Amino acid sequence: MTRTVDLNADMGESFGDWTMGDDAALLGIITSANIACGMHAGDWDVMARTMQAAKAQKVGIGAHPGFPDLQGFGRRRMHVPLDSLGNLVRYQLCAAQGMARAQGAEVRHLKLHGALANMASENKAMARACYEAALSVDPDIIVMVLAGTAQQAAVQELGCKAACEIFADRAYNDDATLVDRSQPGAVIHDAAAAAKRMVEMVGAGAIITESGKHIPTRIDTICLHGDTTEAVQIAAQVRTALDADGVTLKAFEGAPI
Amino acid sequence: MTRTVDLNADMGESFGDWTMGDDAALLGIITSANIACGMHAGDWDVMARTMQAAKAQKVGIGAHPGFPDLQGFGRRRMHVPLDSLGNLVRYQLCAAQGMARAQGAEVRHLKLHGALANMASENKAMARACYEAALSVDPDIIVMVLAGTAQQAAVQELGCKAACEIFADRAYNDDATLVDRSQPGAVIHDAAAAAKRMVEMVGAGAIITESGKHIPTRIDTICLHGDTTEAVQIAAQVRTALDADGVTLKAFEGAPI
Amino acid sequence: MTRTVDLNADMGESFGDWTMGDDAALLGIITSANIACGMHAGDWDVMARTMQAAKAQKVGIGAHPGFPDLQGFGRRRMHVPLDSLGNLVRYQLCAAQGMARAQGAEVRHLKLHGALANMASENKAMARACYEAALSVDPDIIVMVLAGTAQQAAVQELGCKAACEIFADRAYNDDATLVDRSQPGAVIHDAAAAAKRMVEMVGAGAIITESGKHIPTRIDTICLHGDTTEAVQIAAQVRTALDADGVTLKAFEGAPI
Amino acid sequence: MTRTVDLNADMGESFGDWTMGDDAALLGIITSANIACGMHAGDWDVMARTMQAAKAQKVGIGAHPGFPDLQGFGRRRMHVPLDSLGNLVRYQLCAAQGMARAQGAEVRHLKLHGALANMASENKAMARACYEAALSVDPDIIVMVLAGTAQQAAVQELGCKAACEIFADRAYNDDATLVDRSQPGAVIHDAAAAAKRMVEMVGAGAIITESGKHIPTRIDTICLHGDTTEAVQIAAQVRTALDADGVTLKAFEGAPI
Repeated sequence: MTRTVDLNADMGESFGDWTMGDDAALLGIITSANIACGMHAGDWDVMARTMQAAKAQKVGIGAHPGFPDLQGFGRRRMHVPLDSLGNLVRYQLCAAQGMARAQGAEVRHLKLHGALANMASENKAMARACYEAALSVDPDIIVMVLAGTAQQAAVQELGCKAACEIFADRAYNDDATLVDRSQPGAVIHDAAAAAKRMVEMVGAGAIITESGKHIPTRIDTICLHGDTTEAVQIAAQVRTALDADGVTLKAFEGAPI
Repeated sequence: MTRTVDLNADMGESFGDWTMGDDAALLGIITSANIACGMHAGDWDVMARTMQAAKAQKVGIGAHPGFPDLQGFGRRRMHVPLDSLGNLVRYQLCAAQGMARAQGAEVRHLKLHGALANMASENKAMARACYEAALSVDPDIIVMVLAGTAQQAAVQELGCKAACEIFADRAYNDDATLVDRSQPGAVIHDAAAAAKRMVEMVGAGAIITESGKHIPTRIDTICLHGDTTEAVQIAAQVRTALDADGVTLKAFEGAPI
Repeated sequence: MTRTVDLNADMGESFGDWTMGDDAALLGIITSANIACGMHAGDWDVMARTMQAAKAQKVGIGAHPGFPDLQGFGRRRMHVPLDSLGNLVRYQLCAAQGMARAQGAEVRHLKLHGALANMASENKAMARACYEAALSVDPDIIVMVLAGTAQQAAVQELGCKAACEIFADRAYNDDATLVDRSQPGAVIHDAAAAAKRMVEMVGAGAIITESGKHIPTRIDTICLHGDTTEAVQIAAQVRTALDADGVTLKAFEGAPI
Repeated sequence: MTRTVDLNADMGESFGDWTMGDDAALLGIITSANIACGMHAGDWDVMARTMQAAKAQKVGIGAHPGFPDLQGFGRRRMHVPLDSLGNLVRYQLCAAQGMARAQGAEVRHLKLHGALANMASENKAMARACYEAALSVDPDIIVMVLAGTAQQAAVQELGCKAACEIFADRAYNDDATLVDRSQPGAVIHDAAAAAKRMVEMVGAGAIITESGKHIPTRIDTICLHGDTTEAVQIAAQVRTALDADGVTLKAFEGAPI
C-alpha cells in the first residue's frame, strides 16, 4: 500500500522592508505553501513574489487569511461577528486568488492563521463561518484543518474537500490539543526527534500524544516552520525521514472527510 | 440616431462605523457604481453590502482602487514604484471580483480613485501600469478613463475596452483639464446649470470648456457625486434632463477607443 | 450642602474625511471631553481641532485611549498582554498630552474606550495595567471609572485621583452592570426620562437599577452621547434638569476614592 | 583645541514580530539614537524597549518621525498639507517624549525620517512646518539637520538648537547633495575607507565631495547604519578611527547655527 503525505508551511510573511522566514529554503522541502494575504502579514508585493516562487517550485498554493492585526501578527484574539468574519476571509481569499492567477497559478487550499485558527479550532460555528465564506467563492477549495479539532468537525458537516494536519514540532495532549507552549517539551527542537515521530504518526495513522496514547486520524499534511535555522533543519530532516520510510511526498488532493 | 450615456458615481466609501455618502439615493439614479476596495475607503463589510445593493438595483459594478491611505482618503499623492503599483491595483481588483462573485455579481469595470487617478491622468506610464495589472486579471474589464487625459492615451495604446468620462459638476479648462478647485466657478453647485451643460456636452459629443470651446471626445459616462444633499439633487436633475432630451441611460459596453 | 457633578462625553471621533458626532453641540453642554487618540478613532488633525475647541469652551480635556482597531471602532475585544497594553495606553496618553500642550491646554483625565473599557471593567488586573501606565506618565492624572466595576476597584487600590461615572441613557441591573443592549429598555431614548433619573441618582448618591434598587456610589460624572440628534437632546435636557435641581455643573476635581 | 563629534543611528525600527537592524551592537558605538515613533516603523513596545536600552547605555534619545506608511517604511513620498504635517510630527514627538519619560529618560533631539527628511531637505517651508511643530512642544529640542540643505536653512531661520549631520557611508556631489544610489560609488561599503574620510571631514570641518572639493560646514554628528553586518563594522571602525585621531565622541549640545 502506498502512503502519501503533504508537507506544508506558512510563507510570504514578510511585510514591506521587513523580512520573515527562509521561504527559499522551505520551498525546496514542502509541497504546499500557506501564503499570508496582507492582514496579519504579507503585502501585495510579497504575495506576488511568493506566489511566483511557489509556482516555479511546483508547490501547491494556499490562502492563509488572518485577523487584520499587523502589530500582533494575527496572534491576538479578536472578537469579530460571524458575518463580518466571513467577509474578512472572503476578501483575503479573493485577493489571493487573483494574485495567483496573475502569476498563472491557482489557489488550491485555505488555512486559517494564528488566533483566527486557534479560535476556530475551539468553536465550530466560527470555523463554519470562515469555511462557508471560502466555499461561496470556490466550492472546490481544499480546507486545511487541525486534525481532531472543531475545524475538522466543521468541514465534516460541510462535506467539502479537506486536508487534515498534524504538527512536526509540537507535543500533543491526550485530547488531541497541543501542549501549551509554557510547558516543558511543548515545542520539539531536536530535528531527529521530530523526524522520528512524524514517521511513527504517519505509519500509525494516528496522533501520538506525549503520554504515548494513539488517537487515530487521517493525516494528509504535516505542518513545518521556517522562521529559524533550526526550523528549516527540522523541516529538511522530516522530509528525508519520511522519504526513507517509503512515504510519497506530494500535495494533497483534498478528499472530503 | 439613438444616443446613450452611462451615469457613474463612487460608492461604498463608508468605513467601519463611519458613514459617507448617500449610496441608497444614488443607486436609484446611476447606472454604474465605482466601489472602494478597502485601501482608501470601504472595508470587507461595506463592500459586501454595497455590491449586494448595486446588484439589486441592476447597477453595473466597478472596482475603485486607491492608495493605501485611509486618513487621507486616497487623496494624498504617494510615490509608488510601477511594479508595486500594479500589485496594489491587482490586489484591490481581485478582492472586489471575489466579493462581487460571492453576491452573484461581476466586476465589469475599473476606475482609479483620487490622487492615484490624478497622477495617472498626467502620467501615461503610471496609467498603463495600473491598467495592465487589471487586464492581467481580467482581459475583458472595461477601463473607465478621464476623457482627454493620459489615462485615455494609455487605454488607446492597450486597445482594451474603455469608457470615457466627463464630470457633471466641474468646469473645464481649454486643454480639457479640470479648473482648479481654488478658482471661482470650478465646482458647479447649481443643479439646473449642471443638467443643462450635460445635455449640451452629450448632444455635442464634446467637452465644452469655461471659455465655450468645444473639445470633441467620446462621452460614455458622466461622473456624479453623492456626498451632499446638493450633490444628490444635481445627480437626479442630470438624469431627468438627459432623459427628457431623449438620451438613453444605461451601463456602458466599453468599446475600445 | 452644595452638590456638584461633571458631564462628560466622547469626542474627536472623526477620522480623516469621515465625520462622527456633533462635537460642537456637545461642547456647549458638557464639562469634560474624552478625546480619541488615533487608534480606534481620531487622528492628529482631529485631535488638534478638538482640543482647541474644548479649550475655547473651557471644557476639561481627557485622553480616551482604545484598541488599535479603526474598522471595529475599538469595540472588538482584543487580547493584548498586560505589559503591551500598558505601552499602548501610555503611547496614546502621551500623544494626547503633547497635542494638548501645543494648544496651551492640559490633559486632566483618562477614560478607557469601548472594548478596552469593557474588559477592564471586568478584569481588575487589566484595569491596573492601563492605569499604572498612565500614572507612570502623570501621577496627578484623574482616572475616570465605571462606578461599581473592577475599574473602580483598581483605582481604589492605586489610591490615585479618580472620577466615578454613571450613564444617562443606559438602564442598570441590580449588580450595577449595564442591562445588555439586546434587552428592551436597555437604552433610554426619552430625554425627559433620562433627565429625571439623573436628577434622582445624583440626589440619592446612588445608582438606581431597573428594579428600583439603590446602589450607593460616589457620582462624579455623568456620561452623555452626541452621535445622534436624540443623544444631543438628552444631553441638553440632563443638563437643564440638574441645573434646575440646584446641582452645580463643573469639571471634577478627582478626589481619590 | 578639542574636537568633538556625535555618532548617530536610526533605531527601534522593528515592528511587532518583525526585527530590523542590530540595535544592541549599535548602542555600544553611537552617542545618539533616532528612535522610530510608530508611523513608518516601531510600535509602542519596540519604543519602550529601545528607549530603555538607549538609556542604559547613556545614549542620547531622539524622536525620529516619518510618514504614516508602514509598507513603504516611510520611504515613499507623500504630499501632506503643512498644517497636517505639523500635527503628524507633533503627535509622534509627543508620544516619544512620554514613552521616554516613563523610562526616566528625555527626548533630546528630533530627526526626520526617510521621504519626509528628503522632501524637507529640498523644501524649506516643509522643514519649517515640521520643526516649528516640534518646537511648539519643546522649545529646547535639538533639531538634527542634513548639513548644507534646506533643513539647515530652516533651523538657521528659526534660531533653535541644532546639530549638523554628515553621512559616513554616502558619497557627496559638489553641491553637498548625496550622490544618487543608482551611481557607482554612491554607497561606501569599505569600512576602512569610510573611517578614513570621516577623520578627514571632521579634521577639515568640511564635507569632502567625490571630486575632492571641500564644502566648509559645522559637523556635529555622523550618521551610521546598523541594518547589515557590514554596516555595523563600518560604524565600529569610524568610531575607532575618530578616537585614534583624538576626536572626543559624545552627544551633541545643539548650539544654534
